[in-house]
Amino acid sequence: MSHTVELLAVGTELLLGNIANTDARELSRELSSLGLNVYYHSVVGDNPARLRQAVELAKSRADILITTGGLGPTCDDLTKQVVAETFGKKLVFSEESAQSIRDFFARTGKAMTDNNLQQAWLPEGCTILKNRWGTAPGCAFRSGNNYVVMLPGPPSECLPMFREEAAPWLMGLSEGVIRSRTLRVFGMGESRVEDLLRQRMNALTNPTLAPYAKEGEVELRITAKADTPREAEALIAPVEAEVRSLLGDLVYGADVPSLEAVVLAGLKGRGLTMGTAESCTGGLIAKRITDLPGSSAVLKGGVVSYTNEVKQHVLGVPARLLEEQGAVCADVAAAMAQGARRVLGCDLSVSATGVAGPDSDERGNPVGLVYVALADRERVWVRELHLGGTRHRRDRIRALGANHAFDMIRRYLDGKDPEQL
Amino acid sequence: MSHTVELLAVGTELLLGNIANTDARELSRELSSLGLNVYYHSVVGDNPARLRQAVELAKSRADILITTGGLGPTCDDLTKQVVAETFGKKLVFSEESAQSIRDFFARTGKAMTDNNLQQAWLPEGCTILKNRWGTAPGCAFRSGNNYVVMLPGPPSECLPMFREEAAPWLMGLSEGVIRSRTLRVFGMGESRVEDLLRQRMNALTNPTLAPYAKEGEVELRITAKADTPREAEALIAPVEAEVRSLLGDLVYGADVPSLEAVVLAGLKGRGLTMGTAESCTGGLIAKRITDLPGSSAVLKGGVVSYTNEVKQHVLGVPARLLEEQGAVCADVAAAMAQGARRVLGCDLSVSATGVAGPDSDERGNPVGLVYVALADRERVWVRELHLGGTRHRRDRIRALGANHAFDMIRRYLDGKDPEQL
Repeated sequence: MSHTVELLAVGTELLLGNIANTDARELSRELSSLGLNVYYHSVVGDNPARLRQAVELAKSRADILITTGGLGPTCDDLTKQVVAETFGKKLVFSEESAQSIRDFFARTGKAMTDNNLQQAWLPEGCTILKNRWGTAPGCAFRSGNNYVVMLPGPPSECLPMFREEAAPWLMGLSEGVIRSRTLRVFGMGESRVEDLLRQRMNALTNPTLAPYAKEGEVELRITAKADTPREAEALIAPVEAEVRSLLGDLVYGADVPSLEAVVLAGLKGRGLTMGTAESCTGGLIAKRITDLPGSSAVLKGGVVSYTNEVKQHVLGVPARLLEEQGAVCADVAAAMAQGARRVLGCDLSVSATGVAGPDSDERGNPVGLVYVALADRERVWVRELHLGGTRHRRDRIRALGANHAFDMIRRYLDGKDPEQL
Repeated sequence: MSHTVELLAVGTELLLGNIANTDARELSRELSSLGLNVYYHSVVGDNPARLRQAVELAKSRADILITTGGLGPTCDDLTKQVVAETFGKKLVFSEESAQSIRDFFARTGKAMTDNNLQQAWLPEGCTILKNRWGTAPGCAFRSGNNYVVMLPGPPSECLPMFREEAAPWLMGLSEGVIRSRTLRVFGMGESRVEDLLRQRMNALTNPTLAPYAKEGEVELRITAKADTPREAEALIAPVEAEVRSLLGDLVYGADVPSLEAVVLAGLKGRGLTMGTAESCTGGLIAKRITDLPGSSAVLKGGVVSYTNEVKQHVLGVPARLLEEQGAVCADVAAAMAQGARRVLGCDLSVSATGVAGPDSDERGNPVGLVYVALADRERVWVRELHLGGTRHRRDRIRALGANHAFDMIRRYLDGKDPEQL
């Protein structure tokens, strides 16, 4: 059974461009990995007539309708009213939901107004989707051959509710279970990864293997459907092994959020500390590691050395080196990393120096030439990167430079050569 | 004449959740400010039958259809084929577009394959929208009471093409001109700004005044329609003056991209340099200023002092102070800023120290308590911020801390008290 899905977002703020429809993106990813085909995304404003038409249309062209937004008191529960009406359902008061709403206000210490309890009116016979992240409950019901799921709009409520409440309900529509594993790849371009795997991807049906391109990275998601979790895992394992044997240690993790998260966990596990010395990345490496809770156990600090003075006086890069070779060269990258290690008193340090653009530097080094270095107590390693090209803008050059710095630490921790690309 | 618009995005990658439909968001903002009402966003995959139905639907329910994506050789120019067919147009070869495509490849040094020239087939009688940012030309035409605009999908092509090519064409559909001005506000919550201005916003029709909430900031866009640019400007001026008199120096700029861009321009104009000392923001302040081209003229460098050791040994914060008061206090913020100024040799420096969460610190300081300081040669100023609350996550606390640091410099450059909130 292959269900088709339409995602319908309700909210004038989307049509004004005040916010982007990120719910559609995130739900689409989740739905794909559940083996459901999303055929349409639609957005309408807080307008009952146009919403009614959109719901009728979705009813006619997809068998699962998932709405986001238009719940809650500020929009008079527009979505619930219109959807219930279109599918011929009455709204009935749910004492259970009312109590959850009262509990939410008690827990957060906010004042509850009466109209908040209007949210407890839900389509008769529906499955209530609990909202532990806000006040508006969601719901799910079947009507003939149609399945309907309603979720609140704010991503901080919509996405966890989908995962914890709606996805299990949707899975109940079909036999068996779905499991997926995401392998993350750094160090090979998107198109090369796809070329390498295309034949295999096309041949596979269960599990499926699908690539997702990200800035400078590729995610490969293996999704299997089976009667039991154990059987699904057994389907995934050989495909994972096959991908890993093709891509080797370009695969930096399975079901992990990012390179920096792998680095943070690796350093923590080994009781090691790190520091940064950043020129072209201008603080981005430190920023990315400190985005993560718990980074204070690992990061001692960093130096952003945007001028030669700071490279020389704070990091101890020799003046002669800067004069003779300029700031963008392998030796300066190495000296920056070693200087940061000494100044910050950390076990490992990484550095980046290069030309982020838009213009080449005063020595004529091209945009995209970046040196990234890693130093430990005994040695220093340097990668020379050529990140130029029309698609590589300043922000992408900086992001890739930071990725390489984390990749060097990752390889170091794995006992691999940090210079290897 | 009030036109209604449907935005139709074409691309399976959107339905898989591989990318978000940011074009819809950005175009919606642009269209609103042109006085055009966006009623629908739709997304379909690279499927001719479903695309044809979506185009028919848009034709019936909106008078302007704007498509994004599905141009170019990799998708066989799907959108162009289907849209032309639906509106009964033939595709004809445009030698002018073919030459632009050849020029693009000559300019970027890439190899041109034959299928690239297929992009030069365009609907008969259309206005060609030039693409100076990629290869696929766009087009615009009228068919009865319908207007159609086709743009490529990549945001780096779609958005500049809309602004420079499509918007003037759309403006030609109606009499007069549209002008808008965006005032950017920092230091007052979104809901308070809206409360303050709601009555005025509701009363205004030409110009209109519309707020856009951003993380920690508010944008106010004033949009006027008139026969000439001069008349439109004359309509905007009194509303701008009124908003400025209500919000005072919370308005940090008109038609400027960000606080850091205002700071960068201000420092450059005065020939001043800056540096940073960051604890809880972990490099974010330096990262944000170095996101901007030309920042090397202003930023000397920065220190990320994530441990007390680094605060003490690199920035010279007195050990006694750290022992007695801990790292999160006004005196440490001040000492960090002064230390950074000395170590980095800059005119002004900013610092941030606080608790970004998710947990309170070892002294029991609550999540969201942040001190931000600014030092010049003679003085130091400190702001104490309480950024806690359920909606303030780690990333938001860090972003707001950085905003305050930039706001302190902005006020300093304007001759205002940097401590004033």
